[in-house]
Amino acid sequence: MPTTFPAHRFSIRLRDTDAAGVLFFSRLLEHAHDAYESWMTALGFPLARLLEDGAHLPLVHVEADYLAPLRLGDEVEVIIDVRRLGNSSFELGYDFLLADKQKAAHAASVHVVMDPSNGQSMALPEDLRRAISDAWGKSRG
Amino acid sequence: MPTTFPAHRFSIRLRDTDAAGVLFFSRLLEHAHDAYESWMTALGFPLARLLEDGAHLPLVHVEADYLAPLRLGDEVEVIIDVRRLGNSSFELGYDFLLADKQKAAHAASVHVVMDPSNGQSMALPEDLRRAISDAWGKSRG
Amino acid sequence: MPTTFPAHRFSIRLRDTDAAGVLFFSRLLEHAHDAYESWMTALGFPLARLLEDGAHLPLVHVEADYLAPLRLGDEVEVIIDVRRLGNSSFELGYDFLLADKQKAAHAASVHVVMDPSNGQSMALPEDLRRAISDAWGKSRG
Amino acid sequence: MPTTFPAHRFSIRLRDTDAAGVLFFSRLLEHAHDAYESWMTALGFPLARLLEDGAHLPLVHVEADYLAPLRLGDEVEVIIDVRRLGNSSFELGYDFLLADKQKAAHAASVHVVMDPSNGQSMALPEDLRRAISDAWGKSRG
Repeated sequence: MPTTFPAHRFSIRLRDTDAAGVLFFSRLLEHAHDAYESWMTALGFPLARLLEDGAHLPLVHVEADYLAPLRLGDEVEVIIDVRRLGNSSFELGYDFLLADKQKAAHAASVHVVMDPSNGQSMALPEDLRRAISDAWGKSRG
Repeated sequence: MPTTFPAHRFSIRLRDTDAAGVLFFSRLLEHAHDAYESWMTALGFPLARLLEDGAHLPLVHVEADYLAPLRLGDEVEVIIDVRRLGNSSFELGYDFLLADKQKAAHAASVHVVMDPSNGQSMALPEDLRRAISDAWGKSRG
Repeated sequence: MPTTFPAHRFSIRLRDTDAAGVLFFSRLLEHAHDAYESWMTALGFPLARLLEDGAHLPLVHVEADYLAPLRLGDEVEVIIDVRRLGNSSFELGYDFLLADKQKAAHAASVHVVMDPSNGQSMALPEDLRRAISDAWGKSRG
Repeated sequence: MPTTFPAHRFSIRLRDTDAAGVLFFSRLLEHAHDAYESWMTALGFPLARLLEDGAHLPLVHVEADYLAPLRLGDEVEVIIDVRRLGNSSFELGYDFLLADKQKAAHAASVHVVMDPSNGQSMALPEDLRRAISDAWGKSRG
């Protein structure tokens, strides 16, 4: 993935921090989703078009481990990794790296394809499955 | 208004603060909008129903003055005041009071009724106008 | 816990939602933290005082499962449950219940006590451990 | 300013939008503050260092006009303009431009230098005043 997709980079802004002086934990997941949106766009599936088409890929699970404090001004790089590709869902992993490549956090998200007409899960569209599968292969080398 | 509508109360949460140890300024406006949503619901126009009906009352202007720092744990009461009621728009004022009734901040918002079919402003629906007008009268005493 | 602590209640605000029309996933975790802050205050350990005293209980892990969509105007009750009480850390569970008691989501957070002088984990202060242990017993009781 | 400072660019993310399908108004001000942080860094005064030095430049006023809806995926450029430079405060303006250079919004913020020892306003440090004054001159052409 690092060799095939532009990395998602951001810096910790004042609005990311809290009175304890470090990143407020849920803001990490906002940045993870930003990275996911950029990744989907690079794959050819920008979320804006998916929503226009009536498709919805809601998160059904998320988790994060916080390994080192993130502070105002820190420069962070997010590396996305396909962890699982199922019939109607897929799982992504996110490594958050500081400038010295120290891993500050790790997150994961599980996305399910929903049929908007009945709210039930449905099979991944074939073109999206192929794009994610290709990304998976590249990230595995 | 204070005598006719339940006041909107909230406490400053960790997620409202930033690394400077006080409220991050834009969070005040999130709380102002919460108060607006509660006020619209008390008026009989919950935003969820307006959106379902295809109505949209976007903000076209907002402003805020910050008079005293707000800190984690502070209890805040918001008093809403109708400041102007026009043909297709209305303006609300928000006083943010601390437990000792000190005014910590003031905000104002201007809302315009949009015709969803063409994105142009349109006249306020008569029942909404009447409800806001009644609220105005009561707040003026 | 439901019988011993005031439940944390909130309604889904416009700012909690996104263009897909439902709760943006990370906002659930903001509400979980609000519930945690209220719970700590009920236990006698408001976060504002802990921070003043130089104590810090950062989250080192969080996870959430999304079971049903949450929409603008939904009324939600959060039930907190002590899931684990260790030497230097504890884990809380959060059930998010809709008005009809349907569980819309579940979350969990792990908090570690940090020694501010060296950034290492340290034993839970005895009074905080006792308060959490009491809460645990009541929620199991 | 456009010729002397790197413009601040961002795209509208899902987390910026709400159930009405457009940008939630207060998120514009978060992006304005991001632009302000980048501008201060370009001026040689990153906020992280100011906070470490005990300096604080809280906003005492903010305002915004929303001219056109901003939607998921829109690419936005922020142009900062010094509007006023006083003894202890300064005012910045922010133009939010879409890809076709249409102005989607305008905002302004007033910042005051506070003496942390007593919470009163104090004169701008001379090096910061000079940097802002230089930026002002360049933006005026």
